[in-house]
Amino acid sequence: MESELKELASRLEQEISGLNLPSNPENLYQPLRYFLSLGGKRIRPILSILGADLFGAGYEKSKSAALAVELFHNFSLIHDDIMDEAPLRRSQKTVHTKWNSNIAILSGDVLLIKAYQQLCLQENRHIPELMRVFNQMAVEVCEGQQLDMDFENRSIAIDEYIEMIRLKTSVLLGCALEMGAIIADAEDESRKLLYEFGVNLGIAFQIQDDLLDLYADAEKFGKQVGGDIIANKKTILVLKAYALANPLQKEFLANLSQITDPQQKVEQTIGIFAELGIKEEVKKLRDSYFRKALEALDQINVPDQNKQKLRSLAAFLEDREV
Amino acid sequence: MESELKELASRLEQEISGLNLPSNPENLYQPLRYFLSLGGKRIRPILSILGADLFGAGYEKSKSAALAVELFHNFSLIHDDIMDEAPLRRSQKTVHTKWNSNIAILSGDVLLIKAYQQLCLQENRHIPELMRVFNQMAVEVCEGQQLDMDFENRSIAIDEYIEMIRLKTSVLLGCALEMGAIIADAEDESRKLLYEFGVNLGIAFQIQDDLLDLYADAEKFGKQVGGDIIANKKTILVLKAYALANPLQKEFLANLSQITDPQQKVEQTIGIFAELGIKEEVKKLRDSYFRKALEALDQINVPDQNKQKLRSLAAFLEDREV
Repeated sequence: MESELKELASRLEQEISGLNLPSNPENLYQPLRYFLSLGGKRIRPILSILGADLFGAGYEKSKSAALAVELFHNFSLIHDDIMDEAPLRRSQKTVHTKWNSNIAILSGDVLLIKAYQQLCLQENRHIPELMRVFNQMAVEVCEGQQLDMDFENRSIAIDEYIEMIRLKTSVLLGCALEMGAIIADAEDESRKLLYEFGVNLGIAFQIQDDLLDLYADAEKFGKQVGGDIIANKKTILVLKAYALANPLQKEFLANLSQITDPQQKVEQTIGIFAELGIKEEVKKLRDSYFRKALEALDQINVPDQNKQKLRSLAAFLEDREV
Repeated sequence: MESELKELASRLEQEISGLNLPSNPENLYQPLRYFLSLGGKRIRPILSILGADLFGAGYEKSKSAALAVELFHNFSLIHDDIMDEAPLRRSQKTVHTKWNSNIAILSGDVLLIKAYQQLCLQENRHIPELMRVFNQMAVEVCEGQQLDMDFENRSIAIDEYIEMIRLKTSVLLGCALEMGAIIADAEDESRKLLYEFGVNLGIAFQIQDDLLDLYADAEKFGKQVGGDIIANKKTILVLKAYALANPLQKEFLANLSQITDPQQKVEQTIGIFAELGIKEEVKKLRDSYFRKALEALDQINVPDQNKQKLRSLAAFLEDREV
């Protein structure tokens, strides 16, 4: 099964590198060719393909919507990287670092428009509904990014954090799947359930991201373990720790941000998190969203065997080590 | 007649201030409410309304597409202002100055998506075609902005400059009109001619902008006369001057950029331009595009009286002093 997903990913990879971006103006399109070639798991377009597949519609029918989702995702990464002042993405220079911020703004803009162009390669009869679902998602992703920036400057509750990641990352997974369902002419109830599957899977996925940052196997992970902690990011781990800590432990947590030696900071964080049982608590939270996702999938009215690919993908995402 | 256009502008102004933007996240939507309230001539949405009106479709039918055009225009201004490091827009602070660049990037992004949402309020049967025309325009506007940035660092020919302004500003006018024609179910040939009218009008409009920068009546103009010259911008006036100058005059032109006193710089520029007959030459160029625009309008197969509003608008734009 996993090989089937890999084959799908490599097929989509070929589509992406085969996208016929113009050569001129070079400063507009060269950054896009560069950024799109950096790879990634291509999970989002796979979801569109599998969403359509669930209701019997094939690859060719859902391909353009899938590509639209991937282009949108890359647009949001290019702009987020400027806002987050991130020097690297997938171990390579970000667009604003390799070129400059102006070029990153404008090539991001044109990539968003290219996503809409891809979407409009779908059949006319599906375009209005695809557009509505896509637009709603796109607005929410921007809202999520804004909340993420706002949260840097104030304290936040766990519920707010979950809402932020729902908007910033999960609705895109829901939308990717729902668009597949629209293309396959699925009934409304199924569309809604598939969207729920995607959103909850996305929240579980993001929580797993936070877990991996601190608890990944350093050799497999490919980036610095504990990067979020070193950068004093308010991940779900940190929020959970504050929620469970007694006053003394809270003081200890607050003092962690002052530690300048990265290794010492990460070790001490792992220590207090172990005391508080954070890893287990956050895994529980992740699994609750994962379960919600699978429950939604269970309820969709198609033969059970049709759901196998999505179940495999979900299992793959939950178990992932990178 | 002009009062009819004014009434249309004020009706659209009301629509814009009545747009139901969410209140949260405040840092995402407050900049948009601010920027959209800065006003402007609202010429682009007026063109969509008049484009539909030309073929007998009324205001309510074309309103959403018209608003989409205006939202797109404002998106591009917000992002261009970051790239151009412009402190002011319509005598008020730009978004990145009043807030910061990150907020200007993200609120610009969401405004572009909101433009697509507006477009999707049109009838389903028109959406795919509206989307294609709109996407094409949007890509070209980005390409135009990139060319404009590229041109800062190299010499350019007059043809390249015209191509740049065609992309950066004129295709939006053509698109605004063509979308009106699509909504009114006009035939393809008429749609194409109306687009040509808009693009050529747009080029004339932009040339007039360059002329006004140096030759406007200071009292009516509302911003610094000669601003482009002071900033060493390569406007059509400068390119034309270089094209007509003899070697000595070219040297004089090149030395102008070194003058630090703004008033002296503007006066000497006006002097050499007078010697070369630049004002008249550029007016001739402007009028040639204006004529092309009107010729395209003439050829559209609708009763002549239907064209009066567009002719008035064109005349108003050519004569404008601000």
